[in-house]
Amino acid sequence: MTNPAPEPAARTDRGPAPDVLGVAVLGYSFMGKAHSNAWRNVNAFYPVPRVAQRVLVGRDAGHVAAAARRYGWEESSTDWRSVLERPDVDVVDICTPGHLHADMAVAALEAGKHVLVEKPLANTVAEAERMAAAAAAARARGVHAMVGFNYRRVPALALARTMIADGRVGEVRQVRASYLQDWLADEHAPMTWRLRRETAGSGALGDLASHAVDQVRFLLGSPVTSVSGTTDTFVRTREGPDGTERVTVDDAAWATLRTDSGAVVSLEVSRCATGRKNALELEVYGSRGGLRFDLERLNELQLFDTTAPGDAQGYSRILVTEDSHPYAGAWWPPGHTLGWDHTFTSQAADFLHAIDTGVPAAPDFADGLAVQRVLHAVTDSAARDGAAVRL
Amino acid sequence: MTNPAPEPAARTDRGPAPDVLGVAVLGYSFMGKAHSNAWRNVNAFYPVPRVAQRVLVGRDAGHVAAAARRYGWEESSTDWRSVLERPDVDVVDICTPGHLHADMAVAALEAGKHVLVEKPLANTVAEAERMAAAAAAARARGVHAMVGFNYRRVPALALARTMIADGRVGEVRQVRASYLQDWLADEHAPMTWRLRRETAGSGALGDLASHAVDQVRFLLGSPVTSVSGTTDTFVRTREGPDGTERVTVDDAAWATLRTDSGAVVSLEVSRCATGRKNALELEVYGSRGGLRFDLERLNELQLFDTTAPGDAQGYSRILVTEDSHPYAGAWWPPGHTLGWDHTFTSQAADFLHAIDTGVPAAPDFADGLAVQRVLHAVTDSAARDGAAVRL
Amino acid sequence: MTNPAPEPAARTDRGPAPDVLGVAVLGYSFMGKAHSNAWRNVNAFYPVPRVAQRVLVGRDAGHVAAAARRYGWEESSTDWRSVLERPDVDVVDICTPGHLHADMAVAALEAGKHVLVEKPLANTVAEAERMAAAAAAARARGVHAMVGFNYRRVPALALARTMIADGRVGEVRQVRASYLQDWLADEHAPMTWRLRRETAGSGALGDLASHAVDQVRFLLGSPVTSVSGTTDTFVRTREGPDGTERVTVDDAAWATLRTDSGAVVSLEVSRCATGRKNALELEVYGSRGGLRFDLERLNELQLFDTTAPGDAQGYSRILVTEDSHPYAGAWWPPGHTLGWDHTFTSQAADFLHAIDTGVPAAPDFADGLAVQRVLHAVTDSAARDGAAVRL
Amino acid sequence: MTNPAPEPAARTDRGPAPDVLGVAVLGYSFMGKAHSNAWRNVNAFYPVPRVAQRVLVGRDAGHVAAAARRYGWEESSTDWRSVLERPDVDVVDICTPGHLHADMAVAALEAGKHVLVEKPLANTVAEAERMAAAAAAARARGVHAMVGFNYRRVPALALARTMIADGRVGEVRQVRASYLQDWLADEHAPMTWRLRRETAGSGALGDLASHAVDQVRFLLGSPVTSVSGTTDTFVRTREGPDGTERVTVDDAAWATLRTDSGAVVSLEVSRCATGRKNALELEVYGSRGGLRFDLERLNELQLFDTTAPGDAQGYSRILVTEDSHPYAGAWWPPGHTLGWDHTFTSQAADFLHAIDTGVPAAPDFADGLAVQRVLHAVTDSAARDGAAVRL
Repeated sequence: MTNPAPEPAARTDRGPAPDVLGVAVLGYSFMGKAHSNAWRNVNAFYPVPRVAQRVLVGRDAGHVAAAARRYGWEESSTDWRSVLERPDVDVVDICTPGHLHADMAVAALEAGKHVLVEKPLANTVAEAERMAAAAAAARARGVHAMVGFNYRRVPALALARTMIADGRVGEVRQVRASYLQDWLADEHAPMTWRLRRETAGSGALGDLASHAVDQVRFLLGSPVTSVSGTTDTFVRTREGPDGTERVTVDDAAWATLRTDSGAVVSLEVSRCATGRKNALELEVYGSRGGLRFDLERLNELQLFDTTAPGDAQGYSRILVTEDSHPYAGAWWPPGHTLGWDHTFTSQAADFLHAIDTGVPAAPDFADGLAVQRVLHAVTDSAARDGAAVRL
Repeated sequence: MTNPAPEPAARTDRGPAPDVLGVAVLGYSFMGKAHSNAWRNVNAFYPVPRVAQRVLVGRDAGHVAAAARRYGWEESSTDWRSVLERPDVDVVDICTPGHLHADMAVAALEAGKHVLVEKPLANTVAEAERMAAAAAAARARGVHAMVGFNYRRVPALALARTMIADGRVGEVRQVRASYLQDWLADEHAPMTWRLRRETAGSGALGDLASHAVDQVRFLLGSPVTSVSGTTDTFVRTREGPDGTERVTVDDAAWATLRTDSGAVVSLEVSRCATGRKNALELEVYGSRGGLRFDLERLNELQLFDTTAPGDAQGYSRILVTEDSHPYAGAWWPPGHTLGWDHTFTSQAADFLHAIDTGVPAAPDFADGLAVQRVLHAVTDSAARDGAAVRL
Repeated sequence: MTNPAPEPAARTDRGPAPDVLGVAVLGYSFMGKAHSNAWRNVNAFYPVPRVAQRVLVGRDAGHVAAAARRYGWEESSTDWRSVLERPDVDVVDICTPGHLHADMAVAALEAGKHVLVEKPLANTVAEAERMAAAAAAARARGVHAMVGFNYRRVPALALARTMIADGRVGEVRQVRASYLQDWLADEHAPMTWRLRRETAGSGALGDLASHAVDQVRFLLGSPVTSVSGTTDTFVRTREGPDGTERVTVDDAAWATLRTDSGAVVSLEVSRCATGRKNALELEVYGSRGGLRFDLERLNELQLFDTTAPGDAQGYSRILVTEDSHPYAGAWWPPGHTLGWDHTFTSQAADFLHAIDTGVPAAPDFADGLAVQRVLHAVTDSAARDGAAVRL
Repeated sequence: MTNPAPEPAARTDRGPAPDVLGVAVLGYSFMGKAHSNAWRNVNAFYPVPRVAQRVLVGRDAGHVAAAARRYGWEESSTDWRSVLERPDVDVVDICTPGHLHADMAVAALEAGKHVLVEKPLANTVAEAERMAAAAAAARARGVHAMVGFNYRRVPALALARTMIADGRVGEVRQVRASYLQDWLADEHAPMTWRLRRETAGSGALGDLASHAVDQVRFLLGSPVTSVSGTTDTFVRTREGPDGTERVTVDDAAWATLRTDSGAVVSLEVSRCATGRKNALELEVYGSRGGLRFDLERLNELQLFDTTAPGDAQGYSRILVTEDSHPYAGAWWPPGHTLGWDHTFTSQAADFLHAIDTGVPAAPDFADGLAVQRVLHAVTDSAARDGAAVRL
């Protein structure tokens, strides 16, 4: 069905899936809206089991009811625990803030629900470990768990991964991974919970570097083995409702990673990169070719192929909308571009496909935990003045 | 609600709109899929009247039933005329081939349905005139008609129009409008109904130039007054199921237009522009600034502002995803891009808004007719060896 | 030596060239500066006969003497006719305004000097015909004549021509040629001799379209057979030293050309294309591939190759600085870019190579005349309301 | 004269400069060719003292004599020490390999010659310190010394520096500096002296990072205070004339720098970045704006200005060829681009201007030494597993 094919894995059956899979989404703001959109549309584009949008869950009864109506849900609820008891709910999709992920995901898995968790998997390594253990236990019972690194479903990035796996850039030596935004460049941007360590865990590191690190793992298929890094907070205090407050998370982070395969990866993330709105940039340099990508132009992949005729070598801008490209064939004819939100729909399709076939979908909670450990190593290394930390 | 605001127009009431507007779509292939997507999603993003996807109509009962299920329709039907009689259908959206548009639209309008017709309005000027007359008559009864030039809902193009209207490029003198595709560049691409004059009317001219001409009218807000043009068919015969057949429509067309406001417009469309997949490009040069756009990067608008500091002037690449940009605020936070299909959803929203408020939405059938006349003038001029035709 | 190799032609000897070729340049302003730069540098980069910068000629004795000193000339002069009599001058390079070209070039050829004339060859077809006749007569005596369409020496464009000649884009069907500048976009830009028909002949047409038409002929190697066109003057009057004056040349011109090989070419030139500084853009669409070029990025050529792997097709941005690329090897290592002025040095090298080997260099005066006829046909067609003119 | 103006400094006179300044260049290969080109052309473009190309110096008598003839020198020599004794030589320009810089530069300064040294200043900090001391002593006698970081004379980078100094991007927080080439990506590229530590000192670090670090200091005007870094050699052995040999320099290097002004700089250089030919990329993010530059498009600077109208903000691509731009006015009219070699000519002009006015030109040997210390700190930090080194 969807491309690229999930890695082969032990299939564990728990009997036939029901005709319709009932879905519940926990959380209804930005990510809840994006995930609702995915569930509303997935059957129109992918030949996966039919879904029913059973219930949208949130804390404010009025707001969640309005959102549920807008986004196509049958019902709304303010009690996520009771939702786990519903027999007509098969899939629980967690879009709440990071510090709530662990409890919700573990409970849902234990209740036998398939669980999709928005990235990052958790705010801490300890939470992520608990979740990964619960997922491993659940898998033995035929229950699936996935973490929502949606950019794995950008056709251009899925194509990049396929090309790398097929050896079309040769041995990968050097990777540049950056994710640059600018919404905190203005020093008058107000204080929010996202800028406090106790609620957000970290700043650009958890929010942006998690995506970048997942992409490095996805593209290269090789674990990160050492990390040297540093972080900084450019705007140290901001105005909030209660006056001036100290910002306790990072505005930006930098790291150099080494992978088991011998590649060196530079990593840079920022919320203060003025003029860069949503620039997840990836560059991969191999012995036979190179690849470049920018999320602000997500329909494009650039490929340099050293086996092309000598006078014609250059980075080719591939418009990744052909039927032969991953995911693209499910949507529109060649040349008709996708947007940011389509990645969530394709992600939902891959998860449904896993549930349907029993072949687990990536990235699973172990992947999410691995990312978490890299992020933690950046903090560790920063505390040691940049000295490398082995993983 | 949506931006940019439709032009003020005489509001004609026909009583309150029902709580839910029932929609029928005629046609279920490429455009039927795109329009179904719009109706399925419009309420999730825009505060417009709620819609119900009543019925999808097509000729093949099995295929249309399957499509209806996939795309979220309550029912399917093979009899479009009976659908016009249903009291629970308020909106009829016509996505069939061009030669069927006139009969269906006129009948639907006469049945009191609001009608949206996919572009181009019709295959001939005569058909378009009949449709425009029917729409004018219907409007007097409070019935709305719109033609689906969906690119008016690309945020970057809506922004361009606003900027031009606000005088930010000054007096527009010169426009370059091209729409380049390449799916017929391969001489082995097979013969289809799209390449026969009797079924398709014309080739790149009707299919691609219609969009480009509509944009010129949209952006400049000034009618085309003269046309000099030519066309060509590069691949004269193609192989079909019945052997070699003569291609009777154009592969490409060129024209120079003049507008009532004094601007000169170059127009070029092709299905043989190798490597250009869906390149609707627009360039506007005015006395105070310039604008550039390419549909393959539909989230971007480039602006040159001669009032910027002298040492800093250059084309600015605006990522048109800010809340302050037309349509963009309805979707995702800044930096999160849209795709090709989002334009249909925004188009549906604008049409629903018109129905709700009674303020007609553009482009109406008169606009569709005006485009048709320009296309016809290209053919006329081509037959006169390029001599200009006045409109 | 230089690439691409000139077309094979009948070699006509006039005895061995002297050890050092003496050069005279007529004209010392913009073009005189650029051509002086070429003669000063040509021996440092190309293995061609050594040149001596004998004399720079101009009307103002003081100014030309200062320029001669600055630009490396042995002497200056105000009498171009006497320069033609000097036995130590072998090459005469004419950089004066267009209406002076014919008399100077014909006299120089008759005096047995090799003649390089800056483009356009002349202001009128009649002058160009007289020059071409003189050049044909001179060639019989082993005397060379070339017209300075310097962009033929842009490595990227020379590469494009080679690729087309080698069939790498297949049969060329469609060409887009435009040359856009903006120095007249400001309606307060003052009146000059360039805006009067009697001195300048035409506006953007002669100045900019001459380059574009030469490139079409160069790239395709096929003559233009018909022309449909129009022109316009957006700013009809301008302020000059003597008050408001009527502009009597075009600000912009448009044409559709057809070539003997069956290609259709759109041509558009303007001095009012706000924000476009020196944008000679060429797009070539063939049955097997496509090419794109923009003079503002003159080190780059974009190639689309339909024979590349299907999932990897896209326009490749070739940085045309490799040793294998035309002209590039004479300069710097790969990746080290050239500027606008280097084209004049390579042009001088090609002319010296022709003198050295006896194999004529292109473009010759017959080429310059052919361009002139196309430009004239645009004016003719414009006077006939756009009806096509056959050549 | 040239822009930007050199920093004010104590002027130390040593009497009037001679009418013509005699120049000697030591070295005649790649850099000798580039510097010869500068001296041959500087008087044609800049109003600086006249120069005479006295003598080109090299080890191979035949080769250097041929090069001298080609590049316009009066004489050649194989004895650099005797050249220092010539009274008709005022300027000594050192283009030899790095390990020869110190002896030559110190001797030349002591002989009273103005000295220009190609970058990097030296292979080691110790050599650079000796040179800086000699330059300081010489300056007291009115003798000038400069190091050839030619990219300071790229108009776009000089403009960037002016904009930063003028506060147009606000307080600079984050800088991305990379210099990517690919000539060692092919593992079959042969062993050379450049890949041995004893001759080359280092690999990409000394060759490429020196430019990048100089730009950071140039653009920000603030010293680097701490460095964390690592290096790698992707291809560990290469084939040479004597068989397989171990590569003892780095292929790539990474570092995070902090400046006295509080900015954080990521630095990445490589000779294995497949498809990147000469990509010195600089990105500067400040509280009020951003800047971007790529040497492969050296005529362009991109500026993001947060004070532009909200709906029109985007990176502007400035074509840095206007008279108002640094250096550009000396060359050609707006829109006519420069190449890589023009930077050397402008550099020569700045040095001659310094000699003429007595106001020292930047970057001086102290700047060259500061760069060397940063590079050394990268090596130091790499040996300490990435732990930061203070400067």
